[in-house]
Amino acid sequence: MLFTERDYYEDVIKMLQDRGVQLPEIAELVVSGQKDRIPDLSLATAIDSIQHVLHKTEVQDAVMTGLALDDVAEAKQLPEPLQERIGGDHATYGIDEQLVMSILGVYGTISWTNFGYLDRVKPGVVGKLNDEQRNGGRVNTFIDDIVAAIAAAAEARIAHD
Amino acid sequence: MLFTERDYYEDVIKMLQDRGVQLPEIAELVVSGQKDRIPDLSLATAIDSIQHVLHKTEVQDAVMTGLALDDVAEAKQLPEPLQERIGGDHATYGIDEQLVMSILGVYGTISWTNFGYLDRVKPGVVGKLNDEQRNGGRVNTFIDDIVAAIAAAAEARIAHD
Amino acid sequence: MLFTERDYYEDVIKMLQDRGVQLPEIAELVVSGQKDRIPDLSLATAIDSIQHVLHKTEVQDAVMTGLALDDVAEAKQLPEPLQERIGGDHATYGIDEQLVMSILGVYGTISWTNFGYLDRVKPGVVGKLNDEQRNGGRVNTFIDDIVAAIAAAAEARIAHD
Amino acid sequence: MLFTERDYYEDVIKMLQDRGVQLPEIAELVVSGQKDRIPDLSLATAIDSIQHVLHKTEVQDAVMTGLALDDVAEAKQLPEPLQERIGGDHATYGIDEQLVMSILGVYGTISWTNFGYLDRVKPGVVGKLNDEQRNGGRVNTFIDDIVAAIAAAAEARIAHD
Repeated sequence: MLFTERDYYEDVIKMLQDRGVQLPEIAELVVSGQKDRIPDLSLATAIDSIQHVLHKTEVQDAVMTGLALDDVAEAKQLPEPLQERIGGDHATYGIDEQLVMSILGVYGTISWTNFGYLDRVKPGVVGKLNDEQRNGGRVNTFIDDIVAAIAAAAEARIAHD
Repeated sequence: MLFTERDYYEDVIKMLQDRGVQLPEIAELVVSGQKDRIPDLSLATAIDSIQHVLHKTEVQDAVMTGLALDDVAEAKQLPEPLQERIGGDHATYGIDEQLVMSILGVYGTISWTNFGYLDRVKPGVVGKLNDEQRNGGRVNTFIDDIVAAIAAAAEARIAHD
Repeated sequence: MLFTERDYYEDVIKMLQDRGVQLPEIAELVVSGQKDRIPDLSLATAIDSIQHVLHKTEVQDAVMTGLALDDVAEAKQLPEPLQERIGGDHATYGIDEQLVMSILGVYGTISWTNFGYLDRVKPGVVGKLNDEQRNGGRVNTFIDDIVAAIAAAAEARIAHD
Repeated sequence: MLFTERDYYEDVIKMLQDRGVQLPEIAELVVSGQKDRIPDLSLATAIDSIQHVLHKTEVQDAVMTGLALDDVAEAKQLPEPLQERIGGDHATYGIDEQLVMSILGVYGTISWTNFGYLDRVKPGVVGKLNDEQRNGGRVNTFIDDIVAAIAAAAEARIAHD
């Protein structure tokens, strides 16, 4: 029994857009992250790399699962104490970082370092999502890590080419 | 700013029991898995090792998150296509295995091998949970991997002692 | 500064052959591992999948590094206590399993389960390599895990297709 | 058959010192990394956390294996093309990052982010080791990642307490 895999690329793009995240914002992280190594990297090349990343089944499952967890927590439909762990983005809750290893695993160890940097410095859209939650806005516990991981993977993909 | 960690051990035990999983069933996997190496391993020692595993914050977060995802899928409250990916335990959906790496990571590489074996052979309660879903029963996509990972970690903990 | 990656496929094949491992032996693990799911999987298809796996840079680096560590230990050129840890295939030495995550990472969580099973049951060439060391033969601490990981990855690659 | 584990702490400390790395240098990375969260973190507390990290078997094995690989490469005793891959710290060689996951795995996902940041920014002793190799000095391909991982783990250990 072999199975044909559907491509959920369009679903994933729409889910990101529904959360206010556009591919060019992620691409800016890629361009900025590679500016020392590839000063002339274009936004179009970065977007192309992100699109390749978002066509992978493992990436799609990670994005869809993480965004759904944010949404269920935003709707306060999780049992306690998990509701508080995710809804409050508790400092020791590490399942968000674990989940994005499904994205980073595919792109190798270079992508882990890229991710660690983005997760620590929180530039651009990563910081915007993180700040929104800290300022009492919606639950973004998973999406900020997911966006950072997509950028980190797209950077690693360009580095390997 | 340091923080004190609460222990969610009782919550985790209750969540497992609400899904019909008792610690002695997991302990049987541990005893059986170690029978060549430690023929006289008692069920009590196995239960004690499982209890130590279930006191770890990373383990508790993984268990609570995985069981909640099963429950939300069982209630058909996930957006498509994720609802079908998790509800149908699709063969290429690998976030369940990714999630349990939060459990296995703490106990080192021995626990990975234990887990791989349990996930493939599906003895005892792992097989029971897997069969329940395959026979049209409730969504157990995450819980079978979580139970296998708890047993695998408890085995590795005994091996390291 | 972009770089062009050389392909070390021929080097890797030769290193495996110098250690007495032929691709058809690894392919037998793949065919056997998939016999419930794909009863008519041919040895040729399995070999083709293994060849694809062995063309990946991350896989090549893991194979070359692991085999070199075995060889340096066999030549007793490691400092103590590492010489005894690797030379004696000590039960708690887990760097061999860690190293093969470079192979398994690329092929996702399905490949981890395949690997765990092969590492535990030790069928075919995996068992042969493991037994050789246990019976006082040469150091095979890394190569048995590497061969199991190549087979596990090739199986996962076929499952995903 | 249970086994008693020896503690290789003294061996590991000596191997690091033989390579010119002292614990206070690693502790400075910890203090600096936590300065926003714990402004009054003392060097003594950081050293204490590093010592705890270096008492773990998995950490000791990772440190000893990585440092040995650097040394064998420095002595030009690896077969080609691996000699060039490690000796030249080739940009796509990722086994060094893979190896340190044995250190980071024990301390959870917070330590991955810490590591990614240190590996990217290369402050203090991490940068010194990296520069030494780039300027034609000895092979430090593994040790810079190992030192960053020890600091990252010690930081995560403090955060979890």
